[in-house]
Amino acid sequence: MAKILIISASESDLPVMEGAGKVLEEFGVEYEMAVSSAHRSPERTVDLVKKFHNGGGKVIIAGAGLAAHLAGAAAAHFPLPVIGVPLSGGKLEGIDALLSTMQMPSGVPVATVAINGTKNAGILAVQILATSDKNLEEKLIEYKKKLNEHFKNR
Amino acid sequence: MAKILIISASESDLPVMEGAGKVLEEFGVEYEMAVSSAHRSPERTVDLVKKFHNGGGKVIIAGAGLAAHLAGAAAAHFPLPVIGVPLSGGKLEGIDALLSTMQMPSGVPVATVAINGTKNAGILAVQILATSDKNLEEKLIEYKKKLNEHFKNR
Amino acid sequence: MAKILIISASESDLPVMEGAGKVLEEFGVEYEMAVSSAHRSPERTVDLVKKFHNGGGKVIIAGAGLAAHLAGAAAAHFPLPVIGVPLSGGKLEGIDALLSTMQMPSGVPVATVAINGTKNAGILAVQILATSDKNLEEKLIEYKKKLNEHFKNR
Amino acid sequence: MAKILIISASESDLPVMEGAGKVLEEFGVEYEMAVSSAHRSPERTVDLVKKFHNGGGKVIIAGAGLAAHLAGAAAAHFPLPVIGVPLSGGKLEGIDALLSTMQMPSGVPVATVAINGTKNAGILAVQILATSDKNLEEKLIEYKKKLNEHFKNR
Amino acid sequence: MAKILIISASESDLPVMEGAGKVLEEFGVEYEMAVSSAHRSPERTVDLVKKFHNGGGKVIIAGAGLAAHLAGAAAAHFPLPVIGVPLSGGKLEGIDALLSTMQMPSGVPVATVAINGTKNAGILAVQILATSDKNLEEKLIEYKKKLNEHFKNR
Amino acid sequence: MAKILIISASESDLPVMEGAGKVLEEFGVEYEMAVSSAHRSPERTVDLVKKFHNGGGKVIIAGAGLAAHLAGAAAAHFPLPVIGVPLSGGKLEGIDALLSTMQMPSGVPVATVAINGTKNAGILAVQILATSDKNLEEKLIEYKKKLNEHFKNR
Amino acid sequence: MAKILIISASESDLPVMEGAGKVLEEFGVEYEMAVSSAHRSPERTVDLVKKFHNGGGKVIIAGAGLAAHLAGAAAAHFPLPVIGVPLSGGKLEGIDALLSTMQMPSGVPVATVAINGTKNAGILAVQILATSDKNLEEKLIEYKKKLNEHFKNR
Amino acid sequence: MAKILIISASESDLPVMEGAGKVLEEFGVEYEMAVSSAHRSPERTVDLVKKFHNGGGKVIIAGAGLAAHLAGAAAAHFPLPVIGVPLSGGKLEGIDALLSTMQMPSGVPVATVAINGTKNAGILAVQILATSDKNLEEKLIEYKKKLNEHFKNR
Repeated sequence: MAKILIISASESDLPVMEGAGKVLEEFGVEYEMAVSSAHRSPERTVDLVKKFHNGGGKVIIAGAGLAAHLAGAAAAHFPLPVIGVPLSGGKLEGIDALLSTMQMPSGVPVATVAINGTKNAGILAVQILATSDKNLEEKLIEYKKKLNEHFKNR
Repeated sequence: MAKILIISASESDLPVMEGAGKVLEEFGVEYEMAVSSAHRSPERTVDLVKKFHNGGGKVIIAGAGLAAHLAGAAAAHFPLPVIGVPLSGGKLEGIDALLSTMQMPSGVPVATVAINGTKNAGILAVQILATSDKNLEEKLIEYKKKLNEHFKNR
Repeated sequence: MAKILIISASESDLPVMEGAGKVLEEFGVEYEMAVSSAHRSPERTVDLVKKFHNGGGKVIIAGAGLAAHLAGAAAAHFPLPVIGVPLSGGKLEGIDALLSTMQMPSGVPVATVAINGTKNAGILAVQILATSDKNLEEKLIEYKKKLNEHFKNR
Repeated sequence: MAKILIISASESDLPVMEGAGKVLEEFGVEYEMAVSSAHRSPERTVDLVKKFHNGGGKVIIAGAGLAAHLAGAAAAHFPLPVIGVPLSGGKLEGIDALLSTMQMPSGVPVATVAINGTKNAGILAVQILATSDKNLEEKLIEYKKKLNEHFKNR
Repeated sequence: MAKILIISASESDLPVMEGAGKVLEEFGVEYEMAVSSAHRSPERTVDLVKKFHNGGGKVIIAGAGLAAHLAGAAAAHFPLPVIGVPLSGGKLEGIDALLSTMQMPSGVPVATVAINGTKNAGILAVQILATSDKNLEEKLIEYKKKLNEHFKNR
Repeated sequence: MAKILIISASESDLPVMEGAGKVLEEFGVEYEMAVSSAHRSPERTVDLVKKFHNGGGKVIIAGAGLAAHLAGAAAAHFPLPVIGVPLSGGKLEGIDALLSTMQMPSGVPVATVAINGTKNAGILAVQILATSDKNLEEKLIEYKKKLNEHFKNR
Repeated sequence: MAKILIISASESDLPVMEGAGKVLEEFGVEYEMAVSSAHRSPERTVDLVKKFHNGGGKVIIAGAGLAAHLAGAAAAHFPLPVIGVPLSGGKLEGIDALLSTMQMPSGVPVATVAINGTKNAGILAVQILATSDKNLEEKLIEYKKKLNEHFKNR
Repeated sequence: MAKILIISASESDLPVMEGAGKVLEEFGVEYEMAVSSAHRSPERTVDLVKKFHNGGGKVIIAGAGLAAHLAGAAAAHFPLPVIGVPLSGGKLEGIDALLSTMQMPSGVPVATVAINGTKNAGILAVQILATSDKNLEEKLIEYKKKLNEHFKNR
C-alpha cells in the first residue's frame, strides 16, 4: 500500500495538487490521490484517513483553499505527519487558507508549506520518509546538488 | 431538550462564551453548553452535534480561536444554522479565527459574528428562533427599543 | 408574501446576488429582490425593510462591497436575522466589505458569510426557516447527502 | 445654533471625541455634542442630522469603532461635509473602523482622518469653515506658525 | 481665480484624477489642474500650493499612489482643507497610499476619501464650498435626491 | 547522537523554544539545543547543521522572529526535514516571521507550524520519527487519546 | 562638520532615535541630531537638509511614525543616501510608517530598515561611509566577528 | 573590478533586476550581474559575496521574492551596504518578500527599497558611491534637476 496520501478538497484543485504527485514519482515514492472535503464529505474524509493509517500509510498531504480545514481534519485523526498546502482559490489569494492551515492548536500540528507549494509538499514528504530510508536520503542529497548546479555559470 | 447548543473549543474560552449564554437567559431561551475541540476531540464534537440534532436542537453557537475549525466542523454535521464566533486568542488577535470561521466553502455556511462577539451570537440565535416564535419576536422588538432609548438625552 | 428579502447595494451586484436567489428556488422558498443603498437611498432602504417586516418577512440577505453598510443598516431596523454578504468590488477585494459587514457592535448582529458567498447566504436563509419547517429540514439533510455523494469514487 | 456637530457612536468614546471639541474651543468655534449609534439608535441619528442641517449646521464630525457606519449614516442624510474619525476600539485596533469609514461608495464621501485623529478632525472642521471666514483663516495661519516655531532650536 | 486645485503626482494618474474635475464641472465650480510630485518636484509643489493660496484658492485635491506624500506635502503649506485621494498604482493596490495619506500627525489633517475615489473628492470639495454658498448647497440637495431616485422601482 | 536539533536564533528566544524540548522529553526523544543566527553567525549555523547531519541527525527545529531566515538557512544545507517556528518578537507579532519562514521557494521546503508553536514543532518532530518507529507511533496514538479524554464530561 | 544627520519627526521619538547615535559613537563617526517634521515644520526640514548638504554631509537618517514622510521629504532635497526608520507610534504598530517610508516613487529612493531599527540605521550609515574609508571597513569586519563570537559555545 | 554586484535569486527575475543595471549604466558605474539563490545555491551565494568583497566590491543589490532571504544572506557575509529589492512574485504580491527583506535583526541591516523598486536600488547604489565621488554627486544633482524639470508647465 502507498505510504503517501494526497487529498484535495475539491476536484478543481487537482491540477495544482498534482505538483506533489509529480515530485513523488521523480523520487520513486508511491502515493494515492483522493478528493474529499472536510465540510462536504466529513465522514468520507475521516474514513480515508483511518483506512490509510490502518494500511500502513505514513504521511498525508492535504491541500485546500478558503477556510482550509482539510489538513487539520486529517491531523485530528492521524497520528503521523500531515502536510498542509494552503491554496490560493478565492479573493484573498490564500491568506485565509494559510492561517486556517497553519494556526493549529497545541497538540495537533500541521506541517504547512507555502501558498500553492505543492511541489515542496512532495519534497517534504520524501524528506520525512528519508529519515529512515538511506536510499531516499541519497536521492535528496543528489537533488540538492542539482538545484545548486543549475546556478553555475549564471 | 434545549434548542441552542453553545460549544467552546477550550475551557479557557468559557468565560467569553458565557456572553452568549447570558443573552439567551435574558430572552428565556434554554441552552446547553459543552467544551469540545474540532482537532483534539473530533469524534466527541461530531457526537455532540448529532445528539443535539437528534434531540431536536435548532441552532449551534461555536466559538474558537486560531485555526478556528469548530464552527465549520459542526456545520459539516448539522443541517440547521451554525453561528461562529471567532475568538481573539493568539498573536494575530482573531484575524486567523475570523478567516477560518467565515471563509467556508459553497454548500456549508457558517453565520459569522464579530471577533469575540458572543453577545451578538446569542442575539442572532434568538432572532433565528424568533422567525417562528411571535413571543420572542416581541421581545426582540422590545430589546431594540431599549437599545434606542438608551441614547435619549445624551 | 415572501419570507426572504434579498437586497443588493447596486445594480452591478445583481448577478452575484442571484446566487442566493437560485438556491432559494432550488429549495422552493419564495423571495423578493430589491436594489437599494444604505448611503444613496437610505430612506428607501428603511422603508423596504419595514414593509418586509410588516408583511411577515423572516430573513433579509444583504450584499454590498466597499464600506458595506447595507446589512448593518437593515439590521438596525429589523428584529429578525439579517445575513450579510461582503462583495469583492474595489481594490481591496472585499476585505473592506468583510470588516464593515461583520464587526457589528453589541446588540445588532449580522450573520456574515464568505466574501461573495451568495450561495451560502441562500442556504443559511433556508437553514433559518428550517428551524420551524420539517419539510425544509428534510431537504437540507438531503442536500448534505448529495454534497457527500458527489465525492464518492474520487 | 452651532455650526459643528460632534457625534459619538457610544458613550465610552466620548473622552477621545472631546479631542475634537477642545480644538474647536481653541479656535472659538461653537459646537454641539451628541451620542447616537447608526445601528442602535438609527432614527435618532437621522433626526439629529436633519435637525442640525435645518438649524444651519455646516459640518458633522462622527467617530465610531468596529464596523463604523456612523459617519456614513450621517453622510447619507447631510448634504454638507461629514468628517469621519475611525476609533481603535476592538481587537483590530481600528483597521475595521478605518475601512468602514473611508471606503464610501461614489456619491457619498466621508472626509476621513487618522485612527483616533479627533484633534485633526477638529482642525479640518475649522479649515472648512475658514474657506469663508477670513478671521478663522488667520487663526489657522497663526496655528501653523506656532507648530513650526515649536521645532526651533531643537 | 479658481477655488479648487487638483494636483496629481504623475501624468499617468491624470485620467483617474479627471473624475474629480468632471464632478466640479457638473456643479459649475471652476478648478485648476496641475501635475507635481512631492518627491520629484518638491519646490514646484510648494510654489503651486502657495500661489494657489495667495490667489484665493480654497480647497486642494491631491492624488498619489505608493508612499503618497503629495496631499500631506500640500497640507504642510496650506491652511485650508486638503483632500487626499489614495491611488491604487503599485502591487499593494493602494493600501500603501491609503495609510500614507490618512495617518497624518496631529496638527496637519488630510481629508482622505476612498482608494481611487476621485469622484467623491470632487463632491467633498463642492460640499466644503457649499458651507458658505446656498446655491451649491441646493445643488447638492438636488444631487442627493437624484441618487435616491435612481433606486426607485428597482 | 541526538536525532533532533533545536536551534534558536537568539538567546532571548530560548524559553519559548524549550516548549519543543519538553515535548521531546515526554516522548523520550533525545535532542540537542543550540543558539545560532542565520545573519549574525552564518558559518556557525552551517557548521551546526552539517555536523548534525553527519552525526546521523534526522530533524531540525528552528525558531526565529522578524525576518526569520534560520529555518530556511538550515534547509539550504540539510536534506532531511526542517521544522520552522515563526516567533512573535517585534512589533508585527510574528506575521513577518511567519511569511519569512513559510514562503520558501520551490525545492527547499520548511515545515512551518503556528506562531510560537514550539510545542507543536516538538510533536511534529516526534511524528516524523514515528514514521519508522512503532513505539513512538503507539505513544502518539496514546497522546491523541489523552487529548480526547481531556474533553470528556465537560 | 558631521557626516551624518539624524532627524527625528518629534521629540517623543528621540529616545528610540538615539539607538542610531550610539552606534555611530561606537564606530567613532560624528553626527548631528535634530528634530523637525515634514508636515509641521516643512521649511525648517528643507533648510536642515540643504545646510547639511552644503556643509559636506554624506548620509541622513530620518525616523518617523504614522504617515512617515520625513525620510521622503529629506530625499526630495538631498542627492546622497537617506536612511528611513519607520517608527511604531500609533495603533498600527508601524505598518503605516513602513509603507510610507519604503514605497517611494521611481527616482527618489529611501534606504529603509526594520520598524524601530535605529541601531541598524546607524550601522548602515557606517557601512555607507566605509565604502571609501578602509578604517571603518576594518571596524565593521571586526564588528561582524564579534557578533559571530557571541554565539560560540551556546 | 566592478564596484556593484547585482544578484538575482532566480533567472526569471532577471528582466526586472535589469532596471537596476540600466540606471548604473546611465551613471557610468560598472557592475556585475549574477544569479544565485540563498536556499538553492547557498555556497555559491556566499562565494560570490566573498569574492566580490575581496575584489574591492562596494555595494550589493539583491532581489528576491517570496521568503526573500537573498539580501539578508549577502548581508551576513558582507561588511559594506547591501540593498534589498523585494520582488512581487507569488500570490502575496511582494508583502512576504518585503517583510523578509526589511525586518532584519539588530547588527545586520539591509537597505530596503520599494517592491520591484530596482530602478531606485540602482540610484541608491550610485548615491552610496557618490558619498566619496564628487563626479557622481554632480550627476545625481543633475538627475534631480531633470526629474524636477520634467514637471514644468504641466
